[in-house]
Amino acid sequence: QAAEREPSARAPPLLTDLYQFTMAYAYWRAGRHQEPAVFELFFRDNPFGGGFSLFAGLHDCLLFLRSFRFTDEDVEFLRSVLPPATDPAFFQFLRGLDCSGVTLRSVPEGTVVFARVPLMEVAGPLAVVQLLETSLLCLVNYASLVCSNAARFRLAAGPRRKLLEMGLRRAQGPDGGLTASRYTHIGGFDLTSNVQAGFLFGIPVAGTMAHSYVTSFTSLEEVWPQTLVAVSGDPDPVDIISLTKGWLSRVCELLGAEPGKIREGELAAFLSYAISYPQNFLPVIDSYSVGCSGLLNFCAVALALCELGYRPVGVRLDSGDLCRQSVDVRRVFRLCSEHFSISAFDSLIIVGTNNISEQSMAELNKKENQIDVVGVGTHLVTCTKQPSLGCVYKLVEVRGRPRMKISEDPQKSTVPGRKSVYRLLDADGHPFLDLACLAVESPPEAGVSLRCFPLGCDDSPVSVTPAQATCLRQDVFTKGQVRRDRLTT
Amino acid sequence: QAAEREPSARAPPLLTDLYQFTMAYAYWRAGRHQEPAVFELFFRDNPFGGGFSLFAGLHDCLLFLRSFRFTDEDVEFLRSVLPPATDPAFFQFLRGLDCSGVTLRSVPEGTVVFARVPLMEVAGPLAVVQLLETSLLCLVNYASLVCSNAARFRLAAGPRRKLLEMGLRRAQGPDGGLTASRYTHIGGFDLTSNVQAGFLFGIPVAGTMAHSYVTSFTSLEEVWPQTLVAVSGDPDPVDIISLTKGWLSRVCELLGAEPGKIREGELAAFLSYAISYPQNFLPVIDSYSVGCSGLLNFCAVALALCELGYRPVGVRLDSGDLCRQSVDVRRVFRLCSEHFSISAFDSLIIVGTNNISEQSMAELNKKENQIDVVGVGTHLVTCTKQPSLGCVYKLVEVRGRPRMKISEDPQKSTVPGRKSVYRLLDADGHPFLDLACLAVESPPEAGVSLRCFPLGCDDSPVSVTPAQATCLRQDVFTKGQVRRDRLTT
Repeated sequence: QAAEREPSARAPPLLTDLYQFTMAYAYWRAGRHQEPAVFELFFRDNPFGGGFSLFAGLHDCLLFLRSFRFTDEDVEFLRSVLPPATDPAFFQFLRGLDCSGVTLRSVPEGTVVFARVPLMEVAGPLAVVQLLETSLLCLVNYASLVCSNAARFRLAAGPRRKLLEMGLRRAQGPDGGLTASRYTHIGGFDLTSNVQAGFLFGIPVAGTMAHSYVTSFTSLEEVWPQTLVAVSGDPDPVDIISLTKGWLSRVCELLGAEPGKIREGELAAFLSYAISYPQNFLPVIDSYSVGCSGLLNFCAVALALCELGYRPVGVRLDSGDLCRQSVDVRRVFRLCSEHFSISAFDSLIIVGTNNISEQSMAELNKKENQIDVVGVGTHLVTCTKQPSLGCVYKLVEVRGRPRMKISEDPQKSTVPGRKSVYRLLDADGHPFLDLACLAVESPPEAGVSLRCFPLGCDDSPVSVTPAQATCLRQDVFTKGQVRRDRLTT
Repeated sequence: QAAEREPSARAPPLLTDLYQFTMAYAYWRAGRHQEPAVFELFFRDNPFGGGFSLFAGLHDCLLFLRSFRFTDEDVEFLRSVLPPATDPAFFQFLRGLDCSGVTLRSVPEGTVVFARVPLMEVAGPLAVVQLLETSLLCLVNYASLVCSNAARFRLAAGPRRKLLEMGLRRAQGPDGGLTASRYTHIGGFDLTSNVQAGFLFGIPVAGTMAHSYVTSFTSLEEVWPQTLVAVSGDPDPVDIISLTKGWLSRVCELLGAEPGKIREGELAAFLSYAISYPQNFLPVIDSYSVGCSGLLNFCAVALALCELGYRPVGVRLDSGDLCRQSVDVRRVFRLCSEHFSISAFDSLIIVGTNNISEQSMAELNKKENQIDVVGVGTHLVTCTKQPSLGCVYKLVEVRGRPRMKISEDPQKSTVPGRKSVYRLLDADGHPFLDLACLAVESPPEAGVSLRCFPLGCDDSPVSVTPAQATCLRQDVFTKGQVRRDRLTT
């Protein structure tokens, strides 16, 4: 895929904080740059005040590690910004750097994870693993945040409703939008409006029309061609404008609507779209007024399409009280289905898009509504409720010796030493505890009781007996190579 | 510059919502794709509940327009996602598209702007200007938001204090981070930690060390080399460890500090860094305890550097009450300066970085403090207070006829017609009103009273007399070409 070909263009090794280079230089100058070191990546609090997070961004991290190399141009730039005292041999050293000495153990992409559990362990030469910090955090933080946010929307929406991500225009620029599309899909969204995300990541794309399309039409004279051929049977083109006008009269009569309030431009827009895409007719019906114009125009065009053997798809509501309107719209669909004996009207879908937040999604489920697909933009991609995840990258071991940061804020002190992380399952196969212990300690055994100390609580240990224990992390990158199958998740 | 070479890699023409293509197809099918159309880009509310915004992202928009072209690969992908009914000739049409028929009038990059004023006017063939919508919004929305946020931090910080952007790790991925660095600089930040932003945009970069560097050291044995040559005079290397130990005793004595509480690893880290960069010594001093260890170690190393003729730069505080600590630190600097007659200690700088928000920046100014440079990350780049700007892109004219979207929410109705926008200045040269009128209306004249209708208020007109009137927008892109000098702002 296009984006995979040039990962360095997305996260070049200069995309990091300057202090990584000044520190790397100081390590190099002291001859410590090759010392084996271990960093851990984790977050301190579950996002959105919730009880979990999804881990995401691993794929991008692997591409980044695989291509981590400085060009001559990079090195020349560094020469211009590092202090003049920098030994020129250091730039030679940088020019030759890569991740061939780096090993990454990581939780798999999309795993449910919890605060303070080390999600990634990055081991390798001190100077190199230090240089990786900012880029790895940048690639994991937002990906995990937006993936978790998507999962919360999915939980609020329930399993049945389809969810469409449509936040590109409100994201932090092009790449923020792409990242959002990619990781909200992993988090439980079905569709995206972002075509580039479909192109790069194979996510199903969706969308039909905006209000500007509707308002660009003023009269039926703008509809061209004015005919459509029936799906089967008669090969002669049918005058679909006349056909639709006939249906519009019948619909108005059925619903007791005033023909005078119907917008001709809107009807022209719907007709023009339906002639272009007769099997994909799903207009936005609230450019003027759903009840007085949009819904009537939709029904008329959709009934004409049905008469010619096509299946209209549905409607989109983009403003106002989506629940109430969806119920009204469904009622009209049922009425048309019964009155005109058009069964296709029983399976029309209703798409709702109107500044949906996690909260309004949850409220949606409590009210009567007939919304089949919900489109979410701003609140999904910007994670309004908490727009950043505070992943950190902490040194836990150098030259085999545990390292610790002590802080007056106990939450900010780190847990030293290289660790193994196990997920303990109960007899029903449900995970109930993530256990971090030193890598040198023996792993937990099924059916054997063990004592552990809940992090962040007081010092009293608890005893647990796992029915099963699995390793939470896997070796995904070893000595410069992505482990087989790790880039296809 | 590297990023300028391949703008299409950053915002390729597929980076848009699918419905732009289905609409473009419907226009094309109806023979309307070449109709001259005009869209306006604006936002409805000033961000952060404030009274203004800065407009930004124009540079990226110009690069995008200039390179807007579909590749064969793009078109093949579109063929796979658009409905099968799509006429193959449409893909030929797409393949030949560019912005040679597009004209962009825009407010200049970095201008102070207000809600509901049309900031950009995009004119051109209906299908093309429709296709540009999402990308332009994506490029303007976050750039303007983060630029405005930076300006608010700058206003809160006052003109004197230096501001450092350091949000890369919390941004929406690599490009979100780069966009933040670029536009916070326009918004009033002096420095960035983001090296790639320095490389691409020439923004001054800054940074020295993180806690991991400090905690990676355990003893003075790790310091290597252990000598430093004085700036002038004696060419023999001096044993800087002994020198520093001597200063440390004197500092402890002066301050009545307990030598037993001093962290040897921290001292080793500071020394090692100072030996590498004796003219750029600015350590983070709160890895363990500022008062019991970090500040003492800093003073000892800095005094040793001074003795050898170097100028230490300062310290960074990264946790706790920055104001109180900065006052304590400054007091110690003054004490050292006086007691040891080392005037370099009078010009040491104090950098503060600890989850700074606009509010805490404003509070900082109300309290006594000695902070010279403030580093801001998360709250700056994620715009926590309001993580998205709601720029919209609305059709106002087709074929010379004004178009309008009507909504039950009056705020969402659009103001139809192609417009001119003037900024009216009073006799002192201060802007007091932005005036939007139809392009066909005559411009306001200096000293001549005119009636205007404040947007969003009731219908009563007000009379104003400008001392001067300037055009707020400029032609920046005409018929496929960026106007001269527009890419160097």
